[in-house]
Amino acid sequence: MTQFMDVHHGMQGLTAEGLKEAHQADLAIEKEEGVHFEKAWADPKSGTVYCLSEGPSAEAVQRVHERAGHKCDEIHPVPLTV
Amino acid sequence: MTQFMDVHHGMQGLTAEGLKEAHQADLAIEKEEGVHFEKAWADPKSGTVYCLSEGPSAEAVQRVHERAGHKCDEIHPVPLTV
Repeated sequence: MTQFMDVHHGMQGLTAEGLKEAHQADLAIEKEEGVHFEKAWADPKSGTVYCLSEGPSAEAVQRVHERAGHKCDEIHPVPLTV
Repeated sequence: MTQFMDVHHGMQGLTAEGLKEAHQADLAIEKEEGVHFEKAWADPKSGTVYCLSEGPSAEAVQRVHERAGHKCDEIHPVPLTV
Protein backbone atom coordinates (compact mmCIF):
# COMPACT_ATOMS: atom_id res chain seq x y z
CA MET A 1 0.00 0.00 0.00
CA THR A 2 1.21 3.47 -0.87
CA GLN A 3 0.20 6.90 0.36
CA PHE A 4 -1.05 9.34 -2.27
CA MET A 5 -1.72 13.07 -2.30
CA ASP A 6 -4.20 14.17 -4.92
CA VAL A 7 -5.28 17.65 -5.91
CA HIS A 8 -8.57 19.01 -7.21
CA HIS A 9 -8.78 22.41 -8.88
CA GLY A 10 -11.85 24.49 -9.70
CA MET A 11 -13.67 23.91 -6.40
CA GLN A 12 -14.22 27.61 -5.70
CA GLY A 13 -16.94 28.27 -3.14
CA LEU A 14 -16.74 24.83 -1.55
CA THR A 15 -18.32 24.80 1.92
CA ALA A 16 -17.44 22.75 5.00
CA GLU A 17 -20.63 20.78 4.39
CA GLY A 18 -19.76 20.24 0.72
CA LEU A 19 -16.31 18.96 1.62
CA LYS A 20 -17.78 16.62 4.22
CA GLU A 21 -20.34 15.26 1.73
CA ALA A 22 -17.67 14.71 -0.94
CA HIS A 23 -15.45 12.92 1.57
CA GLN A 24 -18.36 10.75 2.71
CA ALA A 25 -19.07 9.82 -0.91
CA ASP A 26 -15.46 8.61 -1.22
CA LEU A 27 -15.61 6.69 2.08
CA ALA A 28 -18.83 4.97 1.04
CA ILE A 29 -17.18 3.17 -1.89
CA GLU A 30 -13.44 3.23 -1.17
CA LYS A 31 -13.29 -0.36 0.13
CA GLU A 32 -14.34 -1.65 -3.29
CA GLU A 33 -11.06 -0.28 -4.67
CA GLY A 34 -8.90 -1.13 -1.64
CA VAL A 35 -8.39 2.60 -0.96
CA HIS A 36 -8.74 4.63 2.22
CA PHE A 37 -9.11 8.40 2.20
CA GLU A 38 -7.44 9.64 5.37
CA LYS A 39 -7.79 13.40 5.27
CA ALA A 40 -8.63 16.35 3.02
CA TRP A 41 -7.80 20.06 3.16
CA ALA A 42 -9.59 22.73 1.12
CA ASP A 43 -9.07 26.32 0.08
CA PRO A 44 -12.51 27.48 -1.14
CA LYS A 45 -11.10 30.79 -2.40
CA SER A 46 -8.67 29.32 -4.96
CA GLY A 47 -10.83 26.20 -5.34
CA THR A 48 -8.03 23.81 -4.38
CA VAL A 49 -8.57 20.56 -2.47
CA TYR A 50 -5.80 18.23 -1.31
CA CYS A 51 -6.68 14.62 -0.40
CA LEU A 52 -4.40 12.20 1.41
CA SER A 53 -5.14 8.53 0.84
CA GLU A 54 -3.67 5.08 1.02
CA GLY A 55 -4.22 2.53 -1.70
CA PRO A 56 -2.79 0.04 -4.16
CA SER A 57 -2.31 2.50 -7.05
CA ALA A 58 -3.00 6.02 -8.27
CA GLU A 59 -5.55 4.52 -10.68
CA ALA A 60 -7.51 2.99 -7.78
CA VAL A 61 -7.56 6.34 -5.96
CA GLN A 62 -8.79 8.09 -9.11
CA ARG A 63 -11.49 5.44 -9.66
CA VAL A 64 -12.97 6.16 -6.23
CA HIS A 65 -12.97 9.92 -6.86
CA GLU A 66 -14.42 9.46 -10.35
CA ARG A 67 -17.19 7.12 -9.19
CA ALA A 68 -17.99 9.54 -6.35
CA GLY A 69 -18.40 12.31 -8.93
CA HIS A 70 -15.28 14.39 -8.36
CA LYS A 71 -12.33 13.24 -10.47
CA CYS A 72 -9.06 14.79 -9.31
CA ASP A 73 -6.60 16.71 -11.50
CA GLU A 74 -3.31 15.39 -10.12
CA ILE A 75 -2.22 12.37 -8.08
CA HIS A 76 1.24 11.78 -6.66
CA PRO A 77 2.49 8.87 -4.61
CA VAL A 78 4.14 10.32 -1.47
CA PRO A 79 6.45 7.57 -0.21
CA LEU A 80 8.43 10.04 1.93
CA THR A 81 6.88 11.75 4.95
CA VAL A 82 8.22 13.70 7.86
CA MET B 1 -3.83 31.09 13.17
CA THR B 2 -4.58 29.46 9.86
CA GLN B 3 -3.54 26.15 8.37
CA PHE B 4 -1.64 26.30 5.08
CA MET B 5 -0.67 23.73 2.47
CA ASP B 6 2.32 24.68 0.38
CA VAL B 7 3.84 22.94 -2.60
CA HIS B 8 7.42 22.69 -3.85
CA HIS B 9 8.20 21.56 -7.39
CA GLY B 10 11.53 20.50 -8.89
CA MET B 11 12.65 18.36 -5.95
CA GLN B 12 13.35 15.27 -8.09
CA GLY B 13 15.60 12.74 -6.36
CA LEU B 14 14.84 13.96 -2.85
CA THR B 15 15.75 11.32 -0.25
CA ALA B 16 14.18 10.56 3.13
CA GLU B 17 17.26 12.09 4.75
CA GLY B 18 17.04 15.20 2.55
CA LEU B 19 13.38 15.68 3.45
CA LYS B 20 14.17 15.28 7.13
CA GLU B 21 17.01 17.81 6.96
CA ALA B 22 14.85 20.34 5.09
CA HIS B 23 12.06 19.90 7.66
CA GLN B 24 14.52 20.33 10.54
CA ALA B 25 15.81 23.54 8.92
CA ASP B 26 12.23 24.88 8.95
CA LEU B 27 11.63 23.77 12.54
CA ALA B 28 14.85 25.45 13.69
CA ILE B 29 13.60 28.94 12.78
CA GLU B 30 9.81 28.67 12.52
CA LYS B 31 9.13 30.17 15.95
CA GLU B 32 10.69 33.46 14.82
CA GLU B 33 7.84 33.80 12.32
CA GLY B 34 5.11 32.33 14.54
CA VAL B 35 4.77 29.35 12.20
CA HIS B 36 4.69 25.62 12.89
CA PHE B 37 5.37 23.04 10.20
CA GLU B 38 3.28 20.02 11.08
CA LYS B 39 3.93 17.50 8.34
CA ALA B 40 5.38 17.06 4.86
CA TRP B 41 4.85 14.50 2.10
CA ALA B 42 7.18 14.02 -0.86
CA ASP B 43 7.16 12.36 -4.26
CA PRO B 44 10.84 12.17 -5.28
CA LYS B 45 9.93 10.96 -8.77
CA SER B 46 7.92 14.01 -9.84
CA GLY B 47 9.85 16.23 -7.43
CA THR B 48 6.75 17.41 -5.58
CA VAL B 49 6.68 18.19 -1.84
CA TYR B 50 3.56 19.16 0.12
CA CYS B 51 3.97 20.88 3.51
CA LEU B 52 1.20 21.40 6.06
CA SER B 53 1.74 24.26 8.47
CA GLU B 54 -0.02 26.60 10.84
CA GLY B 55 0.83 30.27 11.00
CA PRO B 56 -0.34 33.87 10.92
CA SER B 57 -0.07 34.33 7.13
CA ALA B 58 1.11 32.75 3.88
CA GLU B 59 3.93 35.33 3.85
CA ALA B 60 5.20 34.11 7.24
CA VAL B 61 5.17 30.50 6.00
CA GLN B 62 7.09 31.51 2.88
CA ARG B 63 9.62 33.50 4.93
CA VAL B 64 10.51 30.39 6.94
CA HIS B 65 10.92 28.28 3.80
CA GLU B 66 12.94 31.02 2.09
CA ARG B 67 15.27 31.56 5.06
CA ALA B 68 15.73 27.77 5.32
CA GLY B 69 16.84 27.71 1.68
CA HIS B 70 13.82 26.14 -0.01
CA LYS B 71 11.23 28.69 -1.13
CA CYS B 72 7.93 27.06 -2.09
CA ASP B 73 6.08 27.53 -5.36
CA GLU B 74 2.49 27.70 -4.09
CA ILE B 75 0.82 28.34 -0.76
CA HIS B 76 -2.89 28.01 -0.02
CA PRO B 77 -4.72 28.59 3.24
CA VAL B 78 -6.79 25.46 3.95
CA PRO B 79 -9.51 26.60 6.36
CA LEU B 80 -11.64 23.51 5.62
CA THR B 81 -10.53 20.03 6.66
CA VAL B 82 -12.21 16.68 6.94
